[in-house]
Amino acid sequence: MSNFDSALTRLLNISHPVVLAPMGGAAGGRLAAAVSRAGGLGLVGASYGDPDWMKTELALMSDVEEPWGVGLVMFTVDKRFELLDLALSYGPDVVALSFGDARPFIAPIKDSGALAIVQVHDVDQALAALDAGADALIVQGAEAGGHSLRRASLPLLPAVRDAVGEDAVLIAAGGIADGRGLAAALLLGADGAMLGTRFLASDEALPSAKVKQRLLQATAGDLVRTRAFDLVRGIEWPEQYSGRALANDFTARWVGFEQELVRAPASVAEDYAQALREDNTDVRAIWTGEVADLINDVLPAATIVEQTVRGAEQALRVAGRRFA
Amino acid sequence: MSNFDSALTRLLNISHPVVLAPMGGAAGGRLAAAVSRAGGLGLVGASYGDPDWMKTELALMSDVEEPWGVGLVMFTVDKRFELLDLALSYGPDVVALSFGDARPFIAPIKDSGALAIVQVHDVDQALAALDAGADALIVQGAEAGGHSLRRASLPLLPAVRDAVGEDAVLIAAGGIADGRGLAAALLLGADGAMLGTRFLASDEALPSAKVKQRLLQATAGDLVRTRAFDLVRGIEWPEQYSGRALANDFTARWVGFEQELVRAPASVAEDYAQALREDNTDVRAIWTGEVADLINDVLPAATIVEQTVRGAEQALRVAGRRFA
Repeated sequence: MSNFDSALTRLLNISHPVVLAPMGGAAGGRLAAAVSRAGGLGLVGASYGDPDWMKTELALMSDVEEPWGVGLVMFTVDKRFELLDLALSYGPDVVALSFGDARPFIAPIKDSGALAIVQVHDVDQALAALDAGADALIVQGAEAGGHSLRRASLPLLPAVRDAVGEDAVLIAAGGIADGRGLAAALLLGADGAMLGTRFLASDEALPSAKVKQRLLQATAGDLVRTRAFDLVRGIEWPEQYSGRALANDFTARWVGFEQELVRAPASVAEDYAQALREDNTDVRAIWTGEVADLINDVLPAATIVEQTVRGAEQALRVAGRRFA
Repeated sequence: MSNFDSALTRLLNISHPVVLAPMGGAAGGRLAAAVSRAGGLGLVGASYGDPDWMKTELALMSDVEEPWGVGLVMFTVDKRFELLDLALSYGPDVVALSFGDARPFIAPIKDSGALAIVQVHDVDQALAALDAGADALIVQGAEAGGHSLRRASLPLLPAVRDAVGEDAVLIAAGGIADGRGLAAALLLGADGAMLGTRFLASDEALPSAKVKQRLLQATAGDLVRTRAFDLVRGIEWPEQYSGRALANDFTARWVGFEQELVRAPASVAEDYAQALREDNTDVRAIWTGEVADLINDVLPAATIVEQTVRGAEQALRVAGRRFA
């Protein structure tokens, strides 16, 4: 397999322009280590910041010699800044920041010697993140699994590239699960791609085999976008963000009845917590992107990295030959 | 400029894999002729089927020697089948069918010697259209201007390609306005691309200079998806389809109040018709895709075709070189 030279691989000193989405609860240390060792960038999904979870999973990165990082959700961590310090104490090469105002985070991250990468969802957010000092941007389209805004990747990526100029380093996220998607993202102006749902169906992802089987069976038609899973967990997501997940009994009951859910008795939240503990896939959220159609097997993470890069190379070679 | 060889250019006997979206009321004969003469495929936007409009615009195609076609919306034309006969009487090489059940239309189109191309929005529709005998598919993502369903192009195109196999001819639509988008579509499994909003900002498009100026000023953040423009015009769109248009005073009043609009007095519809006659852009629909950010000039249609193909070729060449 060839290496792909881009501003992203140079910035991060990695072999392949493939980044693991820091999926909360799913992208643990084992998965992040496997992606980094395969030549991509593994990001541990510290998400809202559970200190015990972080300590367990970040400890697994101690013997990873390749660049790796950690992802944090800003609108929760900005109330508990010690979680950033905890993450930095493990010496990540990258901190990926999502959903919130990046400004308070950039200086401490850079002071630690790590790079600060900020996820954005439209052109204005991209300009603001660069202004705040971000070293690179994750440009996330609404095709993504989990939380996003409303713009789709295909027209969003070139719009962001045009707005930020040639020098900014852009990682495409949302709607990418194979080499075709990576190649398309590169042509649209990205320097690499972040894959989430594809890595959820990997051997190393933390969720159970049952969760992964549900994902394999799903098509994009089986997904819903909803705030219901956030409301039942009491996570104070800014209202403009909703999350894409597999439809199940829980979404059948609550999508369209979100206001009722806000006022529901405590037993509803308790039942949901119980379903999480029991890994009940008829109830629990399985965040899944519109790429669900493209995922038909659970693979080792290293195989996903390799197939994605090789597929992109092949797609570019075939398409390039068709210009006579 | 090189030619691009694909299953689409061979099927249609055209030089460039660029198709004009048959935008109702906007893609008239002059624009369709210009696109076909530039080596793409021009489609006259007969849409819901106004016989007088069709006669005027289709007459302009009589001296076009290159392949050209006409687009019809099936859920209206299936009640007035004579509109298909009217279209076929002008001898198009292609009929593009959108929004509805293609089965009754395929045989008469093929009997006339034309090719039947069917627009689809998900994998199931794609399989059904091929089963009905479609010669090619337009795979339209939700980034499009005007009416669409909910799937985005980036993950939808490879899913359709995987489902239909290598031999089916696919045209990507939705989210494409330049060479980067065309190149990405080709890598995702399409054989060519359909552009709408980009050609709306062409010299030859029928709407006024005022409409085109509104489009140039717009960004993707200025768009809404709504059924309000359909409801006020009394067009019986199947409920799952809504249209993406520029936000204006009309959408500010009616988006979120669609049920009220259904029951509104006749004067509301009369006022809307009046605004259309007066070309009042604060009220009338200007269908616009999420590519709005990428469109900053009104160009001759031939220049758009040329820039798109040249841009795709260049994007592919640059990206291909980056694999070391």
